[in-house]
Amino acid sequence: MTIITAVQTFDVRFPTSLSADGSDAMNKDGDYSAAYVVLRTDDPALSGYGFTFTIGRGNDLCVSAAEQRALPLVGRDVDEIVNDLGGLYRELQGDSQLRWLGPDKGVIHLALAAVMNAVWDLAARVAGKPLWRLLTDMTPEQLVEVADLRYLSDALTRDEAVALLTELAPTRGERIAELESSGYPCYTTSAGWLGYSDAKLRRLCQEAVDAGYRHIKLKVGANREDDHRRLRIAREVIGWDADLMIDANQVWDVPEAIEWVNSLAEFKPLWIEEPTSPDDVLGHAAVRRAVSPIGVASGEHGMNRVLFKQMFQAGALDFCQLDAARLGSINEILAVYLLAKKFGVPVCPHAGGVGLCELVQHLSIFDYVAVSGSLEGRVTEFVDHLHEHFVEPCIVEDGAYTLPTAPGYSAEMYEGSVAEYSFPHGSYWVSARESDDVAVVADRERLASSRVA
Amino acid sequence: MTIITAVQTFDVRFPTSLSADGSDAMNKDGDYSAAYVVLRTDDPALSGYGFTFTIGRGNDLCVSAAEQRALPLVGRDVDEIVNDLGGLYRELQGDSQLRWLGPDKGVIHLALAAVMNAVWDLAARVAGKPLWRLLTDMTPEQLVEVADLRYLSDALTRDEAVALLTELAPTRGERIAELESSGYPCYTTSAGWLGYSDAKLRRLCQEAVDAGYRHIKLKVGANREDDHRRLRIAREVIGWDADLMIDANQVWDVPEAIEWVNSLAEFKPLWIEEPTSPDDVLGHAAVRRAVSPIGVASGEHGMNRVLFKQMFQAGALDFCQLDAARLGSINEILAVYLLAKKFGVPVCPHAGGVGLCELVQHLSIFDYVAVSGSLEGRVTEFVDHLHEHFVEPCIVEDGAYTLPTAPGYSAEMYEGSVAEYSFPHGSYWVSARESDDVAVVADRERLASSRVA
Repeated sequence: MTIITAVQTFDVRFPTSLSADGSDAMNKDGDYSAAYVVLRTDDPALSGYGFTFTIGRGNDLCVSAAEQRALPLVGRDVDEIVNDLGGLYRELQGDSQLRWLGPDKGVIHLALAAVMNAVWDLAARVAGKPLWRLLTDMTPEQLVEVADLRYLSDALTRDEAVALLTELAPTRGERIAELESSGYPCYTTSAGWLGYSDAKLRRLCQEAVDAGYRHIKLKVGANREDDHRRLRIAREVIGWDADLMIDANQVWDVPEAIEWVNSLAEFKPLWIEEPTSPDDVLGHAAVRRAVSPIGVASGEHGMNRVLFKQMFQAGALDFCQLDAARLGSINEILAVYLLAKKFGVPVCPHAGGVGLCELVQHLSIFDYVAVSGSLEGRVTEFVDHLHEHFVEPCIVEDGAYTLPTAPGYSAEMYEGSVAEYSFPHGSYWVSARESDDVAVVADRERLASSRVA
Repeated sequence: MTIITAVQTFDVRFPTSLSADGSDAMNKDGDYSAAYVVLRTDDPALSGYGFTFTIGRGNDLCVSAAEQRALPLVGRDVDEIVNDLGGLYRELQGDSQLRWLGPDKGVIHLALAAVMNAVWDLAARVAGKPLWRLLTDMTPEQLVEVADLRYLSDALTRDEAVALLTELAPTRGERIAELESSGYPCYTTSAGWLGYSDAKLRRLCQEAVDAGYRHIKLKVGANREDDHRRLRIAREVIGWDADLMIDANQVWDVPEAIEWVNSLAEFKPLWIEEPTSPDDVLGHAAVRRAVSPIGVASGEHGMNRVLFKQMFQAGALDFCQLDAARLGSINEILAVYLLAKKFGVPVCPHAGGVGLCELVQHLSIFDYVAVSGSLEGRVTEFVDHLHEHFVEPCIVEDGAYTLPTAPGYSAEMYEGSVAEYSFPHGSYWVSARESDDVAVVADRERLASSRVA
């Protein structure tokens, strides 16, 4: 019998704002961060790793919330947990006092994602399989048992869910073999951050084309003239056969979104991403009707399965971009994949940030093998930042994720990285305080660590 | 010149779970709590008080988030702040790193509510007016300037908002006089908590009738037989001329909600409250179509103005129950009142909890005087718990709130109450730990204050 002996949490922050990595029309100066959770067991060789992703201030709130979420795990038998991952999820999610702070959204839900991501990582390690393999080895009934279908039965019943999965079960092996040979297709956002100069944009677009990418994404929405100029540069480099996507990061009201996006139609974007508030189901549906044939994509801020259910019911999305660290881990992500399958919407997960690419590769593989059985209209985000901090980083070759082989959810960070970037006492932050960057750090810390009361 | 010198925050928790006060089908053992914020100035006679409401564990997260939200206030000139309450709200709300944790929902939004409630309390004290009077003394243009209309322009433009308010501006005085004479009508939930015995339910219904209430609300949704028996008792006591409302606190999926509510139709409920997930706009609309003439009410967990916009657009609500501590204070609440007016939906604010009645009396008065100009279909919740901790408690007579006269938002708590119930080191919690209630307290504290890492 193996017991969970401790939950360790870490507030890990990378100073990405210094280089404008990740800058967009809404988020000009994010410090990519992870509320990182480690589940320790009495077997020194076995731990579970998970996290949620934030962009700086408030990462401490997710860490505190994750501690509260994870505490019921201490002292539990690992086998008991991995044999009832649906029950554990419902127990943690169902804490009614914490539920009041959402429900199923914001800090407490991000924290649930961090903790359950660590639990699923642990489960895959116990099984000695990469997470995608753990999932594709589960029967349709087992998958539906762990999925969170609460509040969804008007759109998808349990029996329908089992039937959807059963249809593709006999041919899973064929699709695994196919992906082992070709990988899962991805696109890159690394080129298109708003804070980059035109020269850097042009160079990065060319590098992306040279690296085999057939899809490129650019941030838009801050200034219309800039958008035209930048999209023209991108098309000059990538040509008209490759796909160009644009991302507004929620800056517009609905009427403004429609007008602005249509003004960019000459560049033939495949999709406009996050044209307005991520909560606005009916708004997304209105935009979609008005900007066709440009597609509408959204979901990285999709707070929970009930939001996605409505997005599908309202016909609001051409592409579903669920987030592996915002939804309640595999339990809730499964529900969104099942809904997407029923409504015929391709899922193209959001990635980038800290470690999101490491997570979503497992999801996309699982989707193709067990749920959708299709690659049509599907391409998963890849951003080439911060992978060096992960013990089993994702590997992208010729514009495709290669299949992870190591046991787990690829979520483990190097202890040295965690120590260096822990906020505010990690060695990076201590030395930044002592160097010429004092003003930058002071500004960061003013809000993050001061306590008046 | 008066300066904000400090922000004090307090984690105040009342052990309401011991008496089953507040128990419902979703929330069986809440400890009514407040993340309480005090803005101190260099004038010892001037402070601003505000809070958000939670039901226990996680209240500490709201306190920490409120500290971060409020920190930019320290050192600011009070006059500058109260003269630009829209600008201050946009500044605090717009912190892009914290925004990532929502946006506009969950812990960071509850914290924004707590801080901006304190700012509005401060503004009303500076003006020497109760908050409702501060608002009804503002011009339509001034009110629209402070309202958060972002993401709403497909449903309500700024010009429309001004026009709605201008229509009623000349006659505000008449309605103030009317309310000063009659008060604002309310209903009571004190009778109907799920954890109460039949005898207690019968006694409390009778007491409510004797106190002049014409509306009574009962919790339902845990057990169908119990619901029938309890509704029968309520109707026996209050008769068929008074209004009976029922509240399921989100326990049902949409199909189950429709079936269960229709099975209670014989008791002629005025409304079913929170029949399903509070995020489910389309689900509420489906329930509303299927249970008519029983009305649908929701909103205490309505996370932000974008959710309410869609509720109105989809025709999902007969009664809008916005919450004064969940929305982003007056700035966002104003937007919801304006939307409700445009779509013709009466607003009946959620109250109860800790201090919510103290807040919402101001909102309902303002609504009648300046926005809706109507009492039809409008009745504001009142729960007779915990008012003894407030310096200026609301006063209810003959089933109506009397108009507050003291300057501010009625949000100040007695320092002695705050000290006694501060968690975990207040005198109540210390002595509970030392008494026979050790097991109860230990269970509460296990999740709330332990730190493993």
